[in-house]
Amino acid sequence: MISVKWQDNQVAMIDQTKLPHSYEVIKTRDLNRIAEAIYKLEIRGGPAIGVTVAYGMAIAAQDSKGMNVKEILNNLEEAKKILNVRPTASNLVWGLEHMENYAKKLLKEDPTVELGELMVEEAKRLAANEIETNLKMAEFGMQVIPDNANIITQCNTGALCTVGIGHVMGTVFYAHQQGKKLHVFTDETRPRLQGAKLNVYELDKNNIPYTLVTDNTAAYLMQLGKVDLVMVGADRMVANGDAAAKIGVYMLAVLAHFHKIPFYMFATTATIDMKTKTGKGIEIEERDPDEVRVIDGAQITIPNANVLNYAFDVTPHELYTAIITERGIIIPPFDENIKKLMAS
Amino acid sequence: MISVKWQDNQVAMIDQTKLPHSYEVIKTRDLNRIAEAIYKLEIRGGPAIGVTVAYGMAIAAQDSKGMNVKEILNNLEEAKKILNVRPTASNLVWGLEHMENYAKKLLKEDPTVELGELMVEEAKRLAANEIETNLKMAEFGMQVIPDNANIITQCNTGALCTVGIGHVMGTVFYAHQQGKKLHVFTDETRPRLQGAKLNVYELDKNNIPYTLVTDNTAAYLMQLGKVDLVMVGADRMVANGDAAAKIGVYMLAVLAHFHKIPFYMFATTATIDMKTKTGKGIEIEERDPDEVRVIDGAQITIPNANVLNYAFDVTPHELYTAIITERGIIIPPFDENIKKLMAS
Repeated sequence: MISVKWQDNQVAMIDQTKLPHSYEVIKTRDLNRIAEAIYKLEIRGGPAIGVTVAYGMAIAAQDSKGMNVKEILNNLEEAKKILNVRPTASNLVWGLEHMENYAKKLLKEDPTVELGELMVEEAKRLAANEIETNLKMAEFGMQVIPDNANIITQCNTGALCTVGIGHVMGTVFYAHQQGKKLHVFTDETRPRLQGAKLNVYELDKNNIPYTLVTDNTAAYLMQLGKVDLVMVGADRMVANGDAAAKIGVYMLAVLAHFHKIPFYMFATTATIDMKTKTGKGIEIEERDPDEVRVIDGAQITIPNANVLNYAFDVTPHELYTAIITERGIIIPPFDENIKKLMAS
Repeated sequence: MISVKWQDNQVAMIDQTKLPHSYEVIKTRDLNRIAEAIYKLEIRGGPAIGVTVAYGMAIAAQDSKGMNVKEILNNLEEAKKILNVRPTASNLVWGLEHMENYAKKLLKEDPTVELGELMVEEAKRLAANEIETNLKMAEFGMQVIPDNANIITQCNTGALCTVGIGHVMGTVFYAHQQGKKLHVFTDETRPRLQGAKLNVYELDKNNIPYTLVTDNTAAYLMQLGKVDLVMVGADRMVANGDAAAKIGVYMLAVLAHFHKIPFYMFATTATIDMKTKTGKGIEIEERDPDEVRVIDGAQITIPNANVLNYAFDVTPHELYTAIITERGIIIPPFDENIKKLMAS
């Protein structure tokens, strides 16, 4: 199950809005269709989006065949604009800029280079790198999971949100494969229910013990002593360690702090944006009120109900026990140790 | 809009599972149908349930016409068993016992008394008393709402959950009517979405400014400084002040504590169970997993997903700023001051 791959010279994405009920694949070379898939969360999760837009940039490069350097760069610039449809996750912008810079480098070396296939290869390399990154992260992540652990998580940071085994869920799968006994509480994660739809799908498929709960149940589970640790994934981490993550992650952080339960934030180095100093600098995406008003076609409230629909919240680093990356575990002081790790 | 009333010698209940889409009334004299309505949340909210079962006991008394005292008491005992379908809220048991004790008293005075109509009158008196109680509670509750307040609440403690104006929402309506400027954030309150369905319906109908959010958004709203106070209603309070309330209320209490935001627990004295000493003595209802798996007919996860579905959680009194009752505002030390108020 690979969320996004290059197939028949097209981008092939599993339509995650159809899971767990049906397994459908969207295949396209149309950049507007790719942008739509990202916006509608048909493809979602920072790393998966990063790889998707990299393939998108490769398509733009292929479509620029026969053009001069200026025209090619214009085409790539245009593709970046079309694909940049969600503001919070850092992998999206990272993927776009990485591919553009790679094209510029190649063109500088040889203005007549056949860019298309080289860009496809580079996007595939990013995907392969992500698979590798997931495994490394899982090895570090596994170290913080005690035996017989009850883990709680928010949203889906599994295979579906990356192109590898996943981050938080990848660690869970890896630990389970290595024989570690564990049980996962997954919050359903309103409004888009990634916990109920995607985590349950992945956990069930892999025979890992789990329990689905509503988001408002996490606090009571902690009071009852049923939770040993929180493991969640960042969509964008900044220089001091603050991170934007799926709405509800900040809730878990405060609740874990109150109940003295360890809280681990998972972030690949590609998710760490060193240019932004603190969480206050992160733009938080507000999404369509109908995501809250309508669930799988069922209208749950009055049609024009006033709604505030933040896709993410920001968790300050003070609430973390540690940050798990593919290059190691970061402990406080976070700003200093993030800097060291990023330079390593 | 009265959630439950006595009409044409029947119990007439607004079917709250149909709101806000359609307004339907269930009329019945069948105790099993009344029990079903309570279990399915067609009628819900402690005080509304209390009045409903009181009417149920009156029906049992009417149906005992011509029987001897032993047979009548057997009939009432049987009715109590049929109607006692939810374990956590105290009003249900309170209503049943109040009506049984009233019947016993009347029968002791005169074993040949025509019990039926007197029991109907008593149930109506309980309903009238609840209306009065709501107003008194609103007068006290209003005192804790600052000007231009942003209130957050969980579940519906409005007109629909009582037979009067409501508790938390009654206070909101009352304050709004008196010209106080306020705005209400209502959590949608999964799994049954009483916030999205019933609060939005009541707030919209009364032109009170409000915003609907998912339960996992409350924490971030507090971080952003958008919430001035929490107002929630207890389903059962015990002698030290601990209270069972809708799942998510404990979450709000911990979040308010962390963000130093005042937290007010609303409870009528009928909701206070002085026989139970602490929250540890409260039995918490676990409900059908399909309440989480299926939303308004839409299956949101795999059919047999493992689910834990607590209907309530328990909030320890240490997290309250004050308790609002119809007899006054209770401040710490709560155990001592609850005792005083209950004796007054």
